Amino acid sequence: MTRETPEWKAVKTSPNMPLPNEMKAWVLGDPEELTLTEKVIPAPGKAEALVRIDAVAICATDLEILKYGTPALIEGGAPFNKNYTPGHEYMGTIAALGPGVDEFEIGDRVTVEIHAGCGQCKRCRMGMYTSCHNYGKNYGDVDKGHRANGFTTDGGFAQYAVNNINTMIRVPDDMSDEEATLVVTAGTSMYGLTELGGLVAGESVVVIGPGPIGLLAVAVAKSLGASPVILVGTRENRNEIGRKLGADYVIDARNEDVVARVMELTGKGADYVVDCAGNETTTNQAVKMTNRGGRICLAAFPKEPVKFDLGYLAVNNIYLYGIRGEGRSATHRAMAFMAEKRFDARLVHTHTFSMEELPTALKYARERIDDAIKVVVSMGNGPKDPKTVK
Amino acid sequence: MTRETPEWKAVKTSPNMPLPNEMKAWVLGDPEELTLTEKVIPAPGKAEALVRIDAVAICATDLEILKYGTPALIEGGAPFNKNYTPGHEYMGTIAALGPGVDEFEIGDRVTVEIHAGCGQCKRCRMGMYTSCHNYGKNYGDVDKGHRANGFTTDGGFAQYAVNNINTMIRVPDDMSDEEATLVVTAGTSMYGLTELGGLVAGESVVVIGPGPIGLLAVAVAKSLGASPVILVGTRENRNEIGRKLGADYVIDARNEDVVARVMELTGKGADYVVDCAGNETTTNQAVKMTNRGGRICLAAFPKEPVKFDLGYLAVNNIYLYGIRGEGRSATHRAMAFMAEKRFDARLVHTHTFSMEELPTALKYARERIDDAIKVVVSMGNGPKDPKTVK
Amino acid sequence: MTRETPEWKAVKTSPNMPLPNEMKAWVLGDPEELTLTEKVIPAPGKAEALVRIDAVAICATDLEILKYGTPALIEGGAPFNKNYTPGHEYMGTIAALGPGVDEFEIGDRVTVEIHAGCGQCKRCRMGMYTSCHNYGKNYGDVDKGHRANGFTTDGGFAQYAVNNINTMIRVPDDMSDEEATLVVTAGTSMYGLTELGGLVAGESVVVIGPGPIGLLAVAVAKSLGASPVILVGTRENRNEIGRKLGADYVIDARNEDVVARVMELTGKGADYVVDCAGNETTTNQAVKMTNRGGRICLAAFPKEPVKFDLGYLAVNNIYLYGIRGEGRSATHRAMAFMAEKRFDARLVHTHTFSMEELPTALKYARERIDDAIKVVVSMGNGPKDPKTVK
Amino acid sequence: MTRETPEWKAVKTSPNMPLPNEMKAWVLGDPEELTLTEKVIPAPGKAEALVRIDAVAICATDLEILKYGTPALIEGGAPFNKNYTPGHEYMGTIAALGPGVDEFEIGDRVTVEIHAGCGQCKRCRMGMYTSCHNYGKNYGDVDKGHRANGFTTDGGFAQYAVNNINTMIRVPDDMSDEEATLVVTAGTSMYGLTELGGLVAGESVVVIGPGPIGLLAVAVAKSLGASPVILVGTRENRNEIGRKLGADYVIDARNEDVVARVMELTGKGADYVVDCAGNETTTNQAVKMTNRGGRICLAAFPKEPVKFDLGYLAVNNIYLYGIRGEGRSATHRAMAFMAEKRFDARLVHTHTFSMEELPTALKYARERIDDAIKVVVSMGNGPKDPKTVK
Repeated sequence: MTRETPEWKAVKTSPNMPLPNEMKAWVLGDPEELTLTEKVIPAPGKAEALVRIDAVAICATDLEILKYGTPALIEGGAPFNKNYTPGHEYMGTIAALGPGVDEFEIGDRVTVEIHAGCGQCKRCRMGMYTSCHNYGKNYGDVDKGHRANGFTTDGGFAQYAVNNINTMIRVPDDMSDEEATLVVTAGTSMYGLTELGGLVAGESVVVIGPGPIGLLAVAVAKSLGASPVILVGTRENRNEIGRKLGADYVIDARNEDVVARVMELTGKGADYVVDCAGNETTTNQAVKMTNRGGRICLAAFPKEPVKFDLGYLAVNNIYLYGIRGEGRSATHRAMAFMAEKRFDARLVHTHTFSMEELPTALKYARERIDDAIKVVVSMGNGPKDPKTVK
Repeated sequence: MTRETPEWKAVKTSPNMPLPNEMKAWVLGDPEELTLTEKVIPAPGKAEALVRIDAVAICATDLEILKYGTPALIEGGAPFNKNYTPGHEYMGTIAALGPGVDEFEIGDRVTVEIHAGCGQCKRCRMGMYTSCHNYGKNYGDVDKGHRANGFTTDGGFAQYAVNNINTMIRVPDDMSDEEATLVVTAGTSMYGLTELGGLVAGESVVVIGPGPIGLLAVAVAKSLGASPVILVGTRENRNEIGRKLGADYVIDARNEDVVARVMELTGKGADYVVDCAGNETTTNQAVKMTNRGGRICLAAFPKEPVKFDLGYLAVNNIYLYGIRGEGRSATHRAMAFMAEKRFDARLVHTHTFSMEELPTALKYARERIDDAIKVVVSMGNGPKDPKTVK
Repeated sequence: MTRETPEWKAVKTSPNMPLPNEMKAWVLGDPEELTLTEKVIPAPGKAEALVRIDAVAICATDLEILKYGTPALIEGGAPFNKNYTPGHEYMGTIAALGPGVDEFEIGDRVTVEIHAGCGQCKRCRMGMYTSCHNYGKNYGDVDKGHRANGFTTDGGFAQYAVNNINTMIRVPDDMSDEEATLVVTAGTSMYGLTELGGLVAGESVVVIGPGPIGLLAVAVAKSLGASPVILVGTRENRNEIGRKLGADYVIDARNEDVVARVMELTGKGADYVVDCAGNETTTNQAVKMTNRGGRICLAAFPKEPVKFDLGYLAVNNIYLYGIRGEGRSATHRAMAFMAEKRFDARLVHTHTFSMEELPTALKYARERIDDAIKVVVSMGNGPKDPKTVK
Repeated sequence: MTRETPEWKAVKTSPNMPLPNEMKAWVLGDPEELTLTEKVIPAPGKAEALVRIDAVAICATDLEILKYGTPALIEGGAPFNKNYTPGHEYMGTIAALGPGVDEFEIGDRVTVEIHAGCGQCKRCRMGMYTSCHNYGKNYGDVDKGHRANGFTTDGGFAQYAVNNINTMIRVPDDMSDEEATLVVTAGTSMYGLTELGGLVAGESVVVIGPGPIGLLAVAVAKSLGASPVILVGTRENRNEIGRKLGADYVIDARNEDVVARVMELTGKGADYVVDCAGNETTTNQAVKMTNRGGRICLAAFPKEPVKFDLGYLAVNNIYLYGIRGEGRSATHRAMAFMAEKRFDARLVHTHTFSMEELPTALKYARERIDDAIKVVVSMGNGPKDPKTVK
C-alpha cells in the first residue's frame, strides 16, 4: 500500500477520491512500442497535485516522441525503455494535494498546460517559464523542479499523473472531458498571438496549416477580433472547419498562389502570420506575405535547416518568433474564451477511444484514418461529448 | 536666383548663412559612375530644414547602392541616371527653415538619421517609422511625405540637403564634424538593442562582425551595462578597436569554435546576439549561441536565401528581428551617450577626405585600403578631428 | 463660390458629392450660447479629407466645453465668441480629398477619432499621438498640424468638417449612422484597456460608472475575454444595459460596500479597474479594489485635487494611468468588434434629433430627460436605427 | 548541536565555513526595543542558502518597522515580541546550501535583494515577484514559500540568515562589504527606472529627494544615459553628493519654484520623475513637472491620503507607478553598473559600526547625526572601505 511511504505523509487525500494500490499506465519501450502496465501512483510534492486522468488527446508531438524520442533538440536524450509514460494533452480530477496547496480542492476538474518552470532561472524570473533554463532538470542532485508533462516527466497515458499547480486550470461544469483536453492546444495558439503582441483586433492574421493548432489559432484570432483572418490549407474538410471557426477567407494552397492571394486580400501584406505547417515552403511564404514591421510566429518548424530568406525579413523589419507549446498563462486566456463558448473547439475533435484502445487511437491520429484530426482517449468519467464512443 | 520661386516664399533664411545660387553635388549615372555637378538648391517644405552638409561618412550600403542601386528588395527600382545624389550618414548646419519649424534655428549644427515616416500609415501611427508602409512615396499623385535620405531622396554627397525635422539631432559644440557623422551608425546599433528590449545591463551580448555597426554595437551595449560583451571577428586590428570600445572578450572566428566559446563564456548561451555579418555561417551561429528565450537582431543579412536552422530557433523560443537602419528615436539615445563621451566612436573613423576626393574616399572604403574602417568626407567647416586631412 | 480659392486647387471633388456654396454650422458665442449660422466650407489640406457630417453624438465633454470652454487644464483658453463649432463624436461621408490621399475615396462612409498628432514631437514619434507635445498648435507661425476635432479645431455640429486621414475609419454598409457615432466612445474604452495591457482574457475587470464610456468598457472588456466583468453603478436602467453588454456582476453603489463586494467576487481584488466616474470616492475605491500589481485606468477624473491614497497604491505596486480620449489606434480595434457585432453599442443610444434640434438634444443629454444616455443628432442620410425620429 | 535535525540532512556544508552551535541575533521586543540574543541557526531548504552576514545597511524602512511594525498596509500585523530579527540590506558569504542548489558554492560572497516570490501566483507567473499575491505566506498549512527578508522572515541583524537563491547576487572580489550592502538600494532605484520603461538615454529625469534611493536613482539614471538628470533636494551636503553621482542640475527646493525650474530646464516638462520624498507637496509637484505622456514613479509615498491632482494627470496622459522595493531583477542590473564602477555608490555611505553597536548605528541613521546618510554595520570579514571603523 503506497500511501504509507514518507513522501505521502504530507499529502492530503479524501475518501471521495479513493486511490487504488497501483495505477494502469502505458509505458514506452523501444520506439513506437507501448505496453499497458501497472505503476506505483506517484505522490504529489510541494505545490503539486495528483490528477486522476479523465481524458487525454493525442498530439502530433506524441507521435514524434514515440518514434524518435523527445524532440531531437531537447537535451537529455531519448526516453526509450525507461518506464516512461508519454501524453501531455490531458485533463482530469484532482485526487490528492501536496503540501502548500490551497488553490484547488480534491474533486476539482482541471485541465493542464505542459510546462512548470523551475522558478529560479533567469527566464522563469521574467515569467517565461516555457523557456526555463533548467528545462528537464527535475531529478538528481540538482533537482530544479522543472516539469514538462509527458516530455521530461511521466504524462497522461495513465490513470494518474502529478502536476505542479501552476499547470492546472479549472474546467467549467458544462464543458465535456473531451473538450477540456483541447484547452492546451488552444493555449498554444493563444500563446503565439500573445507573443505577437496580443492586440490583434482589426489586424490581419494569416494562419498557415489547418492542423489542430492552426484551426484553433483561427478561432483564437477571431475571438480576439482579428480581421480578416485568413487560413491557408490543402484539405477541404479541414478548411471547412476553419471557416466554421472564424476564417474570413480560406486559401487552397494547391490551387492558388498563396502569397499573391494574401497580398490581394490585405493590400500590403498581413500584420501577423502564424505558421503551423513549418516547412521550407511555408516559412518563406510567411516572410513574403508579412507587411513591413509585421510579425511571424512559428508554431511548427522544419526538422532540418531550410533555405530561408533572412534578407527579405531584415529589409522589411519583420519579427520572427518560434514557440514551444504554450506560455505566459495563455492557456488561461484560451480557457476564458472556451468557457464563454466564444468558439467551438470541439469541431477539431473527431474521434474518441477508451484507454485500452490507445494504440488504435494513435493509429487513427497517425494515419488520419476517417479524416481524423483530434483523437481523444476518454475514461468516461465526466460529461461526454456526443462524439464519444458508447 | 532660386530664392524667388513660390516654394521658397514660406522659407526662412538668414544673412548669417547665405545661400549660393547653385550647389555642388555628386550624381549617380551608370552603376558606380559618380559625377560632380551643379544642382538647384532644394527648398525645405513644411516641417523640413535645409542642411548645409559639413561632413558625410561612407557606409557599406552606399557602396552597394552605387553598384546595384537601392537595395534589391526595396520597391521603386534602381536609381541610375536619374540625377540622384546618394549619401546618408551626414551632418551639417541648418541653412534655412521650412514653414512650421521652431524646434531648430538657422546655424544649429545637426546630424541626421535616415528615415522620416509618412506619419499616416499603420506603422508610423505606432511609432515604427522605419517600417513605414509608404516607403519611398514622396512624390507624384500620392506624395505621402516619406523620406529616406540618400535612398529614396537626394542625400549627402552634396553641399546641401533637405531634411524632415524628425531626422535631425543637435550636435554639441565640442563634437567634431567627423564624429557627428557616426551618430547614425551608433543609432543603428542602439536600435538593434532597443528592439531586443533595451534592458541589457548585466545581460550577455554577443556582437558578430566588427564593421562600424558591430563595433559601435559593442560600445552601445557596454554603455547600457551589458556584461559580458563578446565580439566575434577575424581582423585583429578591428578586434583591438572592439576591445577599446568595451568588448570583455573577443573571439577570433578563424581560430576558435565560435559557438563553443560563447557557451563556455556564458554558461547557457548569450541573452542577446547582434549579427552584423549576416551570412549563412554567422546567422546559424547566432541561433546556436543564443540561450532559451534569448533574442537575435540581424543588423546585416544575406542577399540570397540561406540554409537556416528555424527548428532550433523554435524549440528554444528564440526571437529574431531584422532591422533596417535606425528607428524608434534610437539615434537620439546614441547621441546622448556620445555627447557624454561614454564611448569614443572616433576609434572607428580611420580616414578623412575632401568633397572633391569622394571617389578616392569610396575606393578606400571599398578596398579597405590602409585598414580603412569608417571613411569620412569633410568640408572642414566645423571642429575637426586630428585625423582630418590638413 | 469657394471652390476657386488657391487652397481648393489641389483638392479632389466629385460630381457625386456636390458641395453647396456655404454650410450650416452651429457656433459658440458666450457660454452655452449656440447659434446656427452659415460658414465657408473649409478646404482639406495635405493628408486631409472633407467629411460631410451625417450624424454626431453628444458627449459629456461637449456639455462641459459649452459651459466652461475647452477643458480647463488644456492650454489655449476658452473658445467663446471665436466662431468655433464644437462636436467631436461624428461620422459622415467623404466629400472631397486633399492632396496625397489615396487611402479613401469620395463617397466612403467614415467615422472619426478625435486626435491627429503633429507627427514630429517626441510622443508622436512614439505613436502616442493623443499625448502630442504640440497639442492645439495647428495655426499661426508654428503650425504643427495637430488637430483635436471639436476641441482645437472646428468639429461636427455642422454640415462639413475637415479631418486628417489618420482620424478616419471606414464604416461597414450595414452599420447605421447613429451606431457609427459610437465608435469613438468604444475606442476610448478600448484605449483604456489597451493601455492597461490589452491581454485581459480571463482577467477580472471592474468598470466604475455606467455612462457611455463605462458601458462600452464593459462591452469591450467582455469582447476581449475578460472574466469576470464587474460593473459598479447606481442607476438601475443603466446597470441593466451593462448586464446586456456583458457585465457578469453589477454592484449597486448605493446599497453595497463596493470594495468588499469586489474582494468577495475576485478573491484578491481585481486585475484591472477602469474608473469612468472619477471622483474622490471612486478613485479611492479603485485603488482599494485592485490587487497587487494590478492596473487602474482613469477614463474620468475629478476637476479639483482630491484626497487620494497614494500610499496604498505604492505599497501594492499598482499602476495608474489617466487617458484623454482615444489613442494608439484603439478606435480601429473598437470598430473591428462593432463591425463583427460582438456587442451592441446601440444599447447606449437612447435618443435621436435633427440638426436643427441640437439645443433640444443637448438639453436631453444634460438633464438626462427620459433617461437619456447617448443622444445623437442625425442628418438622416445613411442607414437609420429604428430609434431615429421619423 | 543543530546540525543533526532532519531538516539539516539534505544541507551541504563545508569545513571551510564551520558553523557555530548558535548565532547571535538582534530581536525586536516592544517597539524600538532591540535585544542581542542567541538563536538557532536556521537550515536552508530547497533552493535556499544559508548566508553568513558580513555587513548590513540601515534603511529608513528599518526605522519604521522598529517603531510601527512592518508597513501598516502589509497584512499580517506588527511583529513585536515574536523573536523577530529585522534588517534587509545585507550581504555576506554563503555558509551552507539547501538541496537543489548548484548556482552558488559555499564561500561565495553575495548580496541580496529582499523578495522571493511564491512562484505560483498570477504575478509571480508574470515575473512580478515583488507583487506576489502570496505575500507573507511562508509558514503554516499554506506555506507558499514567499519570503521578504527582514519583513516577513528573519533578516540581517544577525550572524546568519536563510535566503532563496533568487535573492542572491554575486559580489566581485574588489567590492567592499560595505559597498555591496548598497546594491539593493541601487536596485530599487533601477527598478523605478525599469518600470518607467528603461530606455531613458537622452530623456530628462527628475529625482525628488536626495535620500539613499534618490541619490542612487540619480546615479542609475545617469548610467543609463538620461540627460538631463535633475535632482530636487534641500540639504546642500546631499545635493553635492547628487552632483557627484551625475545630477546635471540640482534644484534647491527651499529657494526655488521647483516646477517652474523644471519647466525652464526641460522646455515641456520632464519625461520621467522619480519621487523619493513622497509627500503631498512632492507628489503634486511631480505631476505638474511631467510632460504629456510622461511617467512618474513613487519610490516613497505618504502614509495618509493626500490632496492629489488626478485631473491634471488624466488630461495629460500621465502614467503613475508605485513601487515597493526592487523587482524584475533590477538588482542584478544595478550590480552590473556597480561592478563596472559606473558610479560610486560609496558616496552615500557615511558611517560604519560593529554588530554590537547596532543601537548606535540606528541612532545615527534616525537622527542623521553627523550628516549621516547610509549607516552600515560591518562584521569586518571582507574587503573594507576606508570609512570603516578600525
